Amino acid sequence: MAEENAPATTVAAAVADQQQEKPVPDAAAGDQSKAEGNGKTVAEEPPKAEMKAVVLTGFGGLKSVKILKKPEPTLADGEVIIRVKACGLNFQDLMARQGAIESLPKAPFILGFECSGVIEQVGEGVEKFKIGDRVVALPEWRAWSELVAVPAKNVFAIPEGLNFVDAAALATNYIVAYVLLFELGAVKPGSSLILHSAGGGVGQAVAQLCKTIDVTVFGVASKSKHEALKGTIDHLLERGSDYAAEVRKVSPEGVDLFLDCVCGEECSRGYSLLKPMGKYILFGSSNIVTGETKSFFSAAKSWWQVDKISPLKLFDENKTLMGFNLRRLLFHQNQSEYVAKIFDKVIGLWKDGKVKPVIDSTWAFEDVGEAMQKMHDRKNIGKIVLDPSLEPKPKPATPVKGKSKNADKEKEKKEEDSSANGTSTPAEASSPTTKEKEKEKESS
Amino acid sequence: MAEENAPATTVAAAVADQQQEKPVPDAAAGDQSKAEGNGKTVAEEPPKAEMKAVVLTGFGGLKSVKILKKPEPTLADGEVIIRVKACGLNFQDLMARQGAIESLPKAPFILGFECSGVIEQVGEGVEKFKIGDRVVALPEWRAWSELVAVPAKNVFAIPEGLNFVDAAALATNYIVAYVLLFELGAVKPGSSLILHSAGGGVGQAVAQLCKTIDVTVFGVASKSKHEALKGTIDHLLERGSDYAAEVRKVSPEGVDLFLDCVCGEECSRGYSLLKPMGKYILFGSSNIVTGETKSFFSAAKSWWQVDKISPLKLFDENKTLMGFNLRRLLFHQNQSEYVAKIFDKVIGLWKDGKVKPVIDSTWAFEDVGEAMQKMHDRKNIGKIVLDPSLEPKPKPATPVKGKSKNADKEKEKKEEDSSANGTSTPAEASSPTTKEKEKEKESS
Repeated sequence: MAEENAPATTVAAAVADQQQEKPVPDAAAGDQSKAEGNGKTVAEEPPKAEMKAVVLTGFGGLKSVKILKKPEPTLADGEVIIRVKACGLNFQDLMARQGAIESLPKAPFILGFECSGVIEQVGEGVEKFKIGDRVVALPEWRAWSELVAVPAKNVFAIPEGLNFVDAAALATNYIVAYVLLFELGAVKPGSSLILHSAGGGVGQAVAQLCKTIDVTVFGVASKSKHEALKGTIDHLLERGSDYAAEVRKVSPEGVDLFLDCVCGEECSRGYSLLKPMGKYILFGSSNIVTGETKSFFSAAKSWWQVDKISPLKLFDENKTLMGFNLRRLLFHQNQSEYVAKIFDKVIGLWKDGKVKPVIDSTWAFEDVGEAMQKMHDRKNIGKIVLDPSLEPKPKPATPVKGKSKNADKEKEKKEEDSSANGTSTPAEASSPTTKEKEKEKESS
Repeated sequence: MAEENAPATTVAAAVADQQQEKPVPDAAAGDQSKAEGNGKTVAEEPPKAEMKAVVLTGFGGLKSVKILKKPEPTLADGEVIIRVKACGLNFQDLMARQGAIESLPKAPFILGFECSGVIEQVGEGVEKFKIGDRVVALPEWRAWSELVAVPAKNVFAIPEGLNFVDAAALATNYIVAYVLLFELGAVKPGSSLILHSAGGGVGQAVAQLCKTIDVTVFGVASKSKHEALKGTIDHLLERGSDYAAEVRKVSPEGVDLFLDCVCGEECSRGYSLLKPMGKYILFGSSNIVTGETKSFFSAAKSWWQVDKISPLKLFDENKTLMGFNLRRLLFHQNQSEYVAKIFDKVIGLWKDGKVKPVIDSTWAFEDVGEAMQKMHDRKNIGKIVLDPSLEPKPKPATPVKGKSKNADKEKEKKEEDSSANGTSTPAEASSPTTKEKEKEKESS
């Protein structure tokens, strides 16, 4: 747990961090510093401009997430630099924080896989964008920053009338939902499905897309959310309960599709609830993040809990097992073009008024800790968005030592204190013990 | 192997067999004798009319397959009786012969899962058919007979102009091919796939359906068939070879779909050749039938050779694993309605001239052994059909003791001799040792 106690860095230290990032092998495509020294950047290096960013200082809990000043990114060929207006928070960010996603750079690095904004610089070889274009971007990391350099292939134009918050909420969630339903699930009018985390961003996107073609949705969510969700989900099931009997009551033969982002024991339950010709799709493994810091143990446990399946069993039962992982598709399998086509379809549905993202809440960068905790506790309904232009919430009168950026240095000496710029205090202050208990109950 | 040597029965014995079938629990739906005694059948029982049928006298090799006289079927509610004009031979018949399919009745029973013909009687409660209708039928077994009683839900009308041989060839093979490509595989123009047993009935159906929407086919077949197949298959691969490199040469990223009816080591090879978002479908396990009689051993071996796969691996790799088994779908999962819809689509394509079944050969019932051996050796290109109206082939001048039905009794005493009515002599005579060697090479 040494990483958790990594000190907040000063501005000077942040520059050093940036240089440390250079040798990270996986940062190649979008490394903000790699253009330095190749003669293409403007000669303004000495007093490099700075920007605010959400930095992970080490894998672990909320304390590892700090708001820091970082040098502005430099532009490489094939990239654009975006002035960020809104950032999407995804469950993967929580997993990244705990180091539960492979191929991340060494900490410290800027978090975030999703943002929207305006193009401020266009690199060599980029044809499809010009300065001033409004876009969403899915960088491999580093989205939660005032400025971000992203390979143009992972940047998609957004139409007039779509605001930045909605655009950020439309990208990952609706791309995932669209692929699950129409590309992999191939649902038809009259199909039925079970959906995990029905209240989350993807869950709400799936529910909306299902309404466009009359698909029945059984949605699993915490009991406390049922009241709020009953307008969007046909049949609500209680998270953590053995809901098989309830599903069979409505749909004795089972369902056509099971969308699982939880993994673990849900795998076999979901599989057994499938109709003949039914499909199970694993599109997340949030069980892996069950607590603040016990990621590695619980990841391993989760992994072994999942039954392996023989293709011959699928053959005997006329069933299908699928996996979908947008991050791997974009950054390890080079399928940006495919993803761009899906996003076009999503935008088409948005233009036709058939989908409208549900925004749970928007947060200042400084409140990212609280936002993450809300998602971790599954208290959100719809998308959680970060907005770098927002002022942080006023903090409760706890002994916070300093609020200005100059306070960073002071905090270095107080590692046991919460964290820089109020990043995480409110969420962490609110009885983590109770939350742990909740989680244990949920995952049992 | 005791079953293999079961004696050919006389007509009297055949009647006894029929009565033996009664207590078989799984024969409920279509049991030809179950209507007896419930007062509904016409009072013609005493000298019951007889018909010719292909009977499996015990699980095992070709010797267990006999042409016998059996009582004509009696009609139950919800059934029709069909005067059979053509029968489809499928790989499953070979597996049934060896007892490698679950839920078969106890031997002896009439073989065959597929036939076409004319409706001769219509049972209570059947609305959609009348006497004289031309149909194809997919009974659970018993299709290879002059008459067969089939639940009406598994009987589908065929249009004017479609002859009985083509109809039998259109049913199973094109239903399977259609589901694999368009329902499960969801191929699009520009997709690519690898297809096992490219020369077989399903293989040729897949190849034709692919041409309707411009899908590239890599077809695996024995080298000896390549010349004959080059008109229908885009890229031919040699059965038993490690063709991965060849596929990668044409399609470096791999293929969108892998259609495997062989199982065993093909599973992992197929999986590894998939593109991101690619699908592997197991729709047969013909490796299980590798020899004449060693079914149980090789079934178990085949089963254990197949790697089980964790859903988390699919999630990491954006891949899909599917199983399709028409027999289970119809007889264990009650999905006749779904299958009927697919057959409608196939008939639509036939009417539009987009598909035309490839018939490898037609055979008399008496030559079923040779026909089965041809399929077993994978020497057919397209569908093998049995036609009960055909005269058996003249037999080579081997020491066959008798050719009339009365010869049955004589043969009982000569169990080591080939079998009744020339069922299997020609195929078995042709050096099984060489064939065994071929197979061992192929499955290694």
